[in-house]
Amino acid sequence: MSDWRDNIRKTEPYVPGEQPQEGNIIKLNTNENPYPPAPAVAKLAAGIDTDRLRLYPDPDVRLLSAELARYHGVRDEQVFVGVGSDDVLAMSFLTFFNSDVPILFPDITYSFYIVWAGLFGIPCRMPAVKEDYSIDINDYMQENGGIVIANPNAPTSLYEPVENIEKIVKANQGSVVIIDEAYIDFGGESALKLIDTYDNILIVRTFSKSRSMAGMRIGYAIGNEELICALKGVKLSYNSYTMNMPSIILGTESVKDEAYFKATTDKIIKTRERITGELRDVGFKVLDSHTNFLFISHKDVPALKIFEELKKQKIYVRYFNKPRLDNYLRVTVGTDEEMDEFMKVLRDIIM
Amino acid sequence: MSDWRDNIRKTEPYVPGEQPQEGNIIKLNTNENPYPPAPAVAKLAAGIDTDRLRLYPDPDVRLLSAELARYHGVRDEQVFVGVGSDDVLAMSFLTFFNSDVPILFPDITYSFYIVWAGLFGIPCRMPAVKEDYSIDINDYMQENGGIVIANPNAPTSLYEPVENIEKIVKANQGSVVIIDEAYIDFGGESALKLIDTYDNILIVRTFSKSRSMAGMRIGYAIGNEELICALKGVKLSYNSYTMNMPSIILGTESVKDEAYFKATTDKIIKTRERITGELRDVGFKVLDSHTNFLFISHKDVPALKIFEELKKQKIYVRYFNKPRLDNYLRVTVGTDEEMDEFMKVLRDIIM
Repeated sequence: MSDWRDNIRKTEPYVPGEQPQEGNIIKLNTNENPYPPAPAVAKLAAGIDTDRLRLYPDPDVRLLSAELARYHGVRDEQVFVGVGSDDVLAMSFLTFFNSDVPILFPDITYSFYIVWAGLFGIPCRMPAVKEDYSIDINDYMQENGGIVIANPNAPTSLYEPVENIEKIVKANQGSVVIIDEAYIDFGGESALKLIDTYDNILIVRTFSKSRSMAGMRIGYAIGNEELICALKGVKLSYNSYTMNMPSIILGTESVKDEAYFKATTDKIIKTRERITGELRDVGFKVLDSHTNFLFISHKDVPALKIFEELKKQKIYVRYFNKPRLDNYLRVTVGTDEEMDEFMKVLRDIIM
Repeated sequence: MSDWRDNIRKTEPYVPGEQPQEGNIIKLNTNENPYPPAPAVAKLAAGIDTDRLRLYPDPDVRLLSAELARYHGVRDEQVFVGVGSDDVLAMSFLTFFNSDVPILFPDITYSFYIVWAGLFGIPCRMPAVKEDYSIDINDYMQENGGIVIANPNAPTSLYEPVENIEKIVKANQGSVVIIDEAYIDFGGESALKLIDTYDNILIVRTFSKSRSMAGMRIGYAIGNEELICALKGVKLSYNSYTMNMPSIILGTESVKDEAYFKATTDKIIKTRERITGELRDVGFKVLDSHTNFLFISHKDVPALKIFEELKKQKIYVRYFNKPRLDNYLRVTVGTDEEMDEFMKVLRDIIM
């Protein structure tokens, strides 16, 4: 007799960072923002009309798409919104990567890419990043079924100049090139300016980092209308109403407060630069971060030992047990107070 | 030169009912609940701590899963939560339907099933419902790669006795049988009691109808732990954090208020029964509804004409331009006041 177990899709899920439920911890392990969302978000949330929850939300998410279009100076039809950038990226893989030729992404990058490739049966090839952890753009000049580049990259924190991104996009006009800009607001230059020149580039962004709204699950893509239209077709073939009402209205409100957005990202950058210096002073190698996290390795003390000692003292950072990464830690930039406490504990550990 | 357009996934999206943005309408077209969510939901929403939005939500949605498990008298590990039942169903198709043998579902049913099959490349066969629009359970005794039955069915509103559902599940223990119980709270008996006897049945539910929370996007599945575990694997391979923080906490609060839930569903059932009688009195055929909507056809006046006339007077119902459905209308049961106005306008149209 047949067994339904034979027809189950086998998966090797992405393993997200721990979300410890205990209080009184310093949480530097999932690149969340240490500052709350824009004050107007709290104000609007308190007045949400829950009677409206009985109705389906707008399947076209027009309010939020229009606000994002205005913010980025593009047309509404160039914006696609999803449940976090993970949803946008997963839908993009499903929509654009249907070739038998392998897609390309760096061997060290956001580890969800290989999971999506596995889930959807997409062949992939992963060129190794260079000794200094930066990508070699020549690796992306070979035949491919699509390309994904996180810029800045994770967990390395490194930014690739937009001129190099353009070279990759230009050389691959027969493929869709996805630029995952989850961390771009922390110092890099966006590839957004390329979308009118090249019809094969899709920029993906998130509200989870610079907008302090990881808990709301909002991400989006910007590209030419044909790409966005194809994405919408797949989205409407999966779930008409992915964005709930609070996400739509609170997300929209967040985009309106540019001053707060700039103030908090600037504050994080300033803290990052200060801590980078302090870490180097005590023997850490720190890659040049353009993100809200630091990728660090100590000259003497193994990363795993530091990770475990920090955890004992309720400071959570991220450790990856993988080749070339296993002597590094990824440390989210928290508030100045959190980072001072982190440095204090860290100094004791490495002494 | 290759063209990225060649590798785009082609879709024929599901077309949801209109979500008119104008005010002052009577909206009976998308089977929403006319009553607001439980009062405790509004209270909790007003006090949401938006500072917490900077953090990722719990990827395991433990708070809500545990509350649903308690409510249904199952173990936490038997519950899977998603972004509306559409998300849960789409993930279930992706997880369980990976056979070359066609899956089975009725030719007249929730029209998203065929869209998901198309999106994921799942072969399917659609046995015709009988003359009276009920399913013929003998059609589900053939070889298959999976089965999906909406019970009660949409847009027919008909309920299939759970004894017949059991016969289907029992005869197909080599396949996963999904019972989509979106409308079960409006009068049918659930197949939930079968999950301990059969390991191949998955029950899918939604907060969008009986719980008045379509705007929050919450659905769930209940089945044996092995099925749920496989679903979680696919979900974590797609997007770790699909449920946002407000959905988790407000959904949980809704489940706690059983008295309100029962009062509003009873009220809808009472209105449904009254309107069923009134419609029959003026020459409508009305199928025996076990849902929060009515599937109706007039003996003289074509459905399309009624649909258009109602719309002119700002009353929205659902019309399907498909064989065997195109002389019917699907009418959501609204408040008594809304239905009285509907009947008044309707009487003028058919006179």
